[in-house]
Amino acid sequence: MTFMQRLGAAAGLIEQRLSELLAECGPEKGERLAAAMQHALLGGGKRFRPFLVVETAALFDVPAEKALDAGAAFECVHCYSLAHDDLPSMDDDEVRRGRPTVHKAFDEWTAILAGDALLTLAFEVIARPQTHRDPAIRAELARLLAHASGGRGMVLGQMLDLAADKRGEPASPTLDHVRRLQALKTGALLAASCEAGAVLGDAGSDHRAAVRRYGEHLGLAFQIADDLLDAEGDAETVGKATGKDSAAGKATLVSLLGIEAARAQLDEAVRGAERELEPFGEKAATLIEAARFTASRGH
Amino acid sequence: MTFMQRLGAAAGLIEQRLSELLAECGPEKGERLAAAMQHALLGGGKRFRPFLVVETAALFDVPAEKALDAGAAFECVHCYSLAHDDLPSMDDDEVRRGRPTVHKAFDEWTAILAGDALLTLAFEVIARPQTHRDPAIRAELARLLAHASGGRGMVLGQMLDLAADKRGEPASPTLDHVRRLQALKTGALLAASCEAGAVLGDAGSDHRAAVRRYGEHLGLAFQIADDLLDAEGDAETVGKATGKDSAAGKATLVSLLGIEAARAQLDEAVRGAERELEPFGEKAATLIEAARFTASRGH
Repeated sequence: MTFMQRLGAAAGLIEQRLSELLAECGPEKGERLAAAMQHALLGGGKRFRPFLVVETAALFDVPAEKALDAGAAFECVHCYSLAHDDLPSMDDDEVRRGRPTVHKAFDEWTAILAGDALLTLAFEVIARPQTHRDPAIRAELARLLAHASGGRGMVLGQMLDLAADKRGEPASPTLDHVRRLQALKTGALLAASCEAGAVLGDAGSDHRAAVRRYGEHLGLAFQIADDLLDAEGDAETVGKATGKDSAAGKATLVSLLGIEAARAQLDEAVRGAERELEPFGEKAATLIEAARFTASRGH
Repeated sequence: MTFMQRLGAAAGLIEQRLSELLAECGPEKGERLAAAMQHALLGGGKRFRPFLVVETAALFDVPAEKALDAGAAFECVHCYSLAHDDLPSMDDDEVRRGRPTVHKAFDEWTAILAGDALLTLAFEVIARPQTHRDPAIRAELARLLAHASGGRGMVLGQMLDLAADKRGEPASPTLDHVRRLQALKTGALLAASCEAGAVLGDAGSDHRAAVRRYGEHLGLAFQIADDLLDAEGDAETVGKATGKDSAAGKATLVSLLGIEAARAQLDEAVRGAERELEPFGEKAATLIEAARFTASRGH
């Protein structure tokens, strides 16, 4: 199987499990809230975060089906964040993955509540005995997910990003500021997805730290590749409007570093990701491909 | 100590602990997000949900300081829900507890993100080892809190309430519909706060079910008293505008039952609450006072 086929197969499993979890723990089918949550959660997306949970868990011999629910919880958080980011008072986007955003398909208050319910669902799923037989692991997964996605993680990153868009703050963003913003907004949840696999596998602290650092390198590669695509890609390949950030005069890693230096950092991030997984030998092949694939989008 | 003094003393402890938890787990002090979370979380409120967690835990000999963090997590959820409910696309309120609502003091996107971060903080706090030494209890608290506050609980109740306000749905609300809406919107988190005390005390299933039913009776009493206040109270005593629901032509338990029958149900709810706590004898005195106090607001 090629990497894309593995990613696609995992996405199929995750999609199925997300649908089941929504039926098991979400509002009843007939409710408007159920329809809005379904719109936000199902029917698209690479499911990259649950893929990372499942693949890092596999490093520690956890079978995919035992990592699926934890992965689904991470995806619920990712999808809630998209529903809220798209809101008129935030990024004000009308289309996502070729479909109307939640507030366009429903309305604003429904989109806010559907996001709230998805965030809450993530923690219900992760805390359920079905997710792992050991409650210490479930509690640690909940703590890890909350820490990565809250006011010291993803939400803070979104806050800094919007402060730049809406308030022009800071007036002259430095490379350090943009790096921190991106590490929070995208990197924190990606790194925690990797770390979650180690938690599921009850890994020692060295191994846990190594897969976390792999996730941090991957997050950086992800972001630089995205910025390069925005600066250089054509809309058809990318599947969404390009040049958006540069047109908005927004500071990105690429605008601050220049394209050549950004590419060099992208390559360095991939080498860093590879290095962290050396102790795992052949078992890490898919995760290494994931890092290379992530970077290849920026070349 | 009178009941009001006990409630006030507990509120002081909770306020202090919320402030510490925000410093320990929230964004750094200088961040705009930290200020908005603080505005939403601190400086007011009866802290009734953490009070219930602490007092039901006391039935099972859990000292107050060992129940405080779990109680604080429930309060974080309550405060996030107020910040989101007040938003322009939801209830569109400008004042809460005599202060500007979060989106008036900051702006809309900040209020949405501060709410998201408070909801996430609730789960970080509840999952931390500091909250209880037994991870099985922490995981169960997280599951309980999520279930009560998500798409089958509080968020669904808010959804049904807004569907009535904004879409006039259903066209002719029945008593059953309004009861269900209120049980979800307010009752679910109150009942779960009581149940959390039993979880903290590692109570048997009979005792746990009894304090949960107490919480359900209390929630109903809370709602009927609120509706009676809205229908009959004068704004000065109530501390907020009255007659709001009846002016809006909104179906409430009181508008559907009539004032006399609503009072009878209120008394019945208090008797139900008292009955559930009989097995706990003298230990339950404060919780019984809480039910009577809740109801007294409607008389």
